[in-house]
Amino acid sequence: MWSELDTPSILVDQTIVEHNLQGMATAASARGLALRPHTKTHKSPLWAQQQVQLGAEGIMVAKLGEAETMLDAGIRRQSIGFPIIGQLKEDKLVSLVHRGLMPRVSVDSTAGVDALARVYQRTGIPIEAIIEVDTGMHRCGVLGATAVVDLADYVRRMHGVHYGGITCFGGHIARTHVQDEIVGRIREENQYLSNLVKVLQEHRLHPTVISEGGTVPAAFLEELTVATEIRPGTYVYNDAATVASFAATWDDCALSVLTTVVSKPAPNRVVLDAGSKTLSSDGPVAGGYGALWGQPGWRLARLSEEHGVLESPEILPWAIGDRIRIVPNHACTTINLHDMTYLIRHDQVAGTLPTLARGKVQ
Amino acid sequence: MWSELDTPSILVDQTIVEHNLQGMATAASARGLALRPHTKTHKSPLWAQQQVQLGAEGIMVAKLGEAETMLDAGIRRQSIGFPIIGQLKEDKLVSLVHRGLMPRVSVDSTAGVDALARVYQRTGIPIEAIIEVDTGMHRCGVLGATAVVDLADYVRRMHGVHYGGITCFGGHIARTHVQDEIVGRIREENQYLSNLVKVLQEHRLHPTVISEGGTVPAAFLEELTVATEIRPGTYVYNDAATVASFAATWDDCALSVLTTVVSKPAPNRVVLDAGSKTLSSDGPVAGGYGALWGQPGWRLARLSEEHGVLESPEILPWAIGDRIRIVPNHACTTINLHDMTYLIRHDQVAGTLPTLARGKVQ
Repeated sequence: MWSELDTPSILVDQTIVEHNLQGMATAASARGLALRPHTKTHKSPLWAQQQVQLGAEGIMVAKLGEAETMLDAGIRRQSIGFPIIGQLKEDKLVSLVHRGLMPRVSVDSTAGVDALARVYQRTGIPIEAIIEVDTGMHRCGVLGATAVVDLADYVRRMHGVHYGGITCFGGHIARTHVQDEIVGRIREENQYLSNLVKVLQEHRLHPTVISEGGTVPAAFLEELTVATEIRPGTYVYNDAATVASFAATWDDCALSVLTTVVSKPAPNRVVLDAGSKTLSSDGPVAGGYGALWGQPGWRLARLSEEHGVLESPEILPWAIGDRIRIVPNHACTTINLHDMTYLIRHDQVAGTLPTLARGKVQ
Repeated sequence: MWSELDTPSILVDQTIVEHNLQGMATAASARGLALRPHTKTHKSPLWAQQQVQLGAEGIMVAKLGEAETMLDAGIRRQSIGFPIIGQLKEDKLVSLVHRGLMPRVSVDSTAGVDALARVYQRTGIPIEAIIEVDTGMHRCGVLGATAVVDLADYVRRMHGVHYGGITCFGGHIARTHVQDEIVGRIREENQYLSNLVKVLQEHRLHPTVISEGGTVPAAFLEELTVATEIRPGTYVYNDAATVASFAATWDDCALSVLTTVVSKPAPNRVVLDAGSKTLSSDGPVAGGYGALWGQPGWRLARLSEEHGVLESPEILPWAIGDRIRIVPNHACTTINLHDMTYLIRHDQVAGTLPTLARGKVQ
């Protein structure tokens, strides 16, 4: 019985994961979209392999350390979302390509393209480059159609680098939790991509791949009229943020944290044994730092490293020793804090899952 | 040369650590205060052992998993700051006591005291309880002098539980970064403790130990007229938050993260390869998520998991490939993300340090 585990413990409900994986695979397939799930959420070859078995044409990772973990598990087709900059990164990519990695690498600078050309020179294997474009998040990504055309042309003319197309992550889309605004931002991004593709085509730079990141756009597939591929990550587990963004329901949340009430210093305040070291400090979402499983109107008011605080103007019903499940705000950052999770099915512990790609920041 | 390491890499400057450890040991000793450093910052037996060698009468941990790691390294005198609630926690504490742990356990409820009594019954070894009092942070901690007296009396009458005194952590003190306000809050806390001790003494509940937590109060020792013990943690490494709280200078910051500029999508924006997976998302401090080493006027404007963004109204001087060192906002949460750190001395890598107590949330 998972309810008897020591606390805090990280629980992943297999039945819900299977439902989430199947649902996304079916939806993408129904619209003829390629699926490259971002594995940063689960950081586990087990789920990555299931994603591929369900039809994903490859996976996505951020860092080369993650790519290595997934390659060790036999997954060769990987999108690498983070720029390859620096000699040590080139050396690492060369080593992974020698071991069979078939990478598609995001670039947003000539320096990033040059790095891939050098990898080709050392391996003899052409490397696919996909141009990261900024659709409004203002993080990485080439800004403006003219600059995109210039870089795409640079890629096309670079020996040993294959021009794959364009990729984006609209992280700004989910910064609002008003559904109409989310849909509006997705439509704006779609329009931007549509215009960009026309400009690229005018320059005979037709993008074979037009890749859209994020679980939130992937929940509104009918709005994506330009994309050829989606790269959702969080959908495997979901969290309070994807629910707040209308990309999932609470029933789709596979990840939860089993906690214990350890203190009740006042009738209207209880303290749980899960803080930012367990849940991460990402947030707030809906005014809190994690939702109570089954009672998501309740949110953790604040976290310190080991403590999660529930507060209310009213007397709280919980007592010291009670156990409470929390749905984290952010599944990806929660998973990254823990070496393993418990896989549960119904009321039983079905197994444990090591987080093999945890902490792979390089 | 540490400057040639792959990025991001976590660097700990041994010379600065030694200076910080020696400085706190000397300051505590000069005032006749016992020192029980909180090891949650470094999570490493190496530094804990040095803290003890420099005169600390014991160490502090939050969770029993951390206590076990430190006990494995031969450190027996430990304050356990988190309530022991639940059968599995009692079992674990029994096992650690059997292995030689000499714990001082924080309690803020009769349930917590009862747990210690049961540990005594199973081990035959009396357990020291110290009452956590709420001096204004409103997290754990007994609220109000009457309730403190009641719980202290409960402890005194409990067979096998030794009444040690009182303990506090004024986490609210550093929520302001105005020095006068910080000192004002420390004085308020000191006055609260002074009044509380008088009340306890009136009830013949003289606290042998009056323990003050945090690196910030420990930087203003002249204000602590009541405490018999301090439990600073962050001072070993320091961070942008302890500097903002006047508890350290930038020269006292032993922890930094070596990063690479991987993208410059606009003249006034560069992206580093260190985000919340490397630095944690704790903050903001002084409006940012990490300070540039040697140029702390520059702060990271925002983080996502792998990206740290530097923005400015002006053109930024950095180019793709440049290396930048970042002082994290919060040393403890940064360290908890990484399995190891590089120990550096001058421009050399002196060794690596595994973060043995990393992720010990149970």
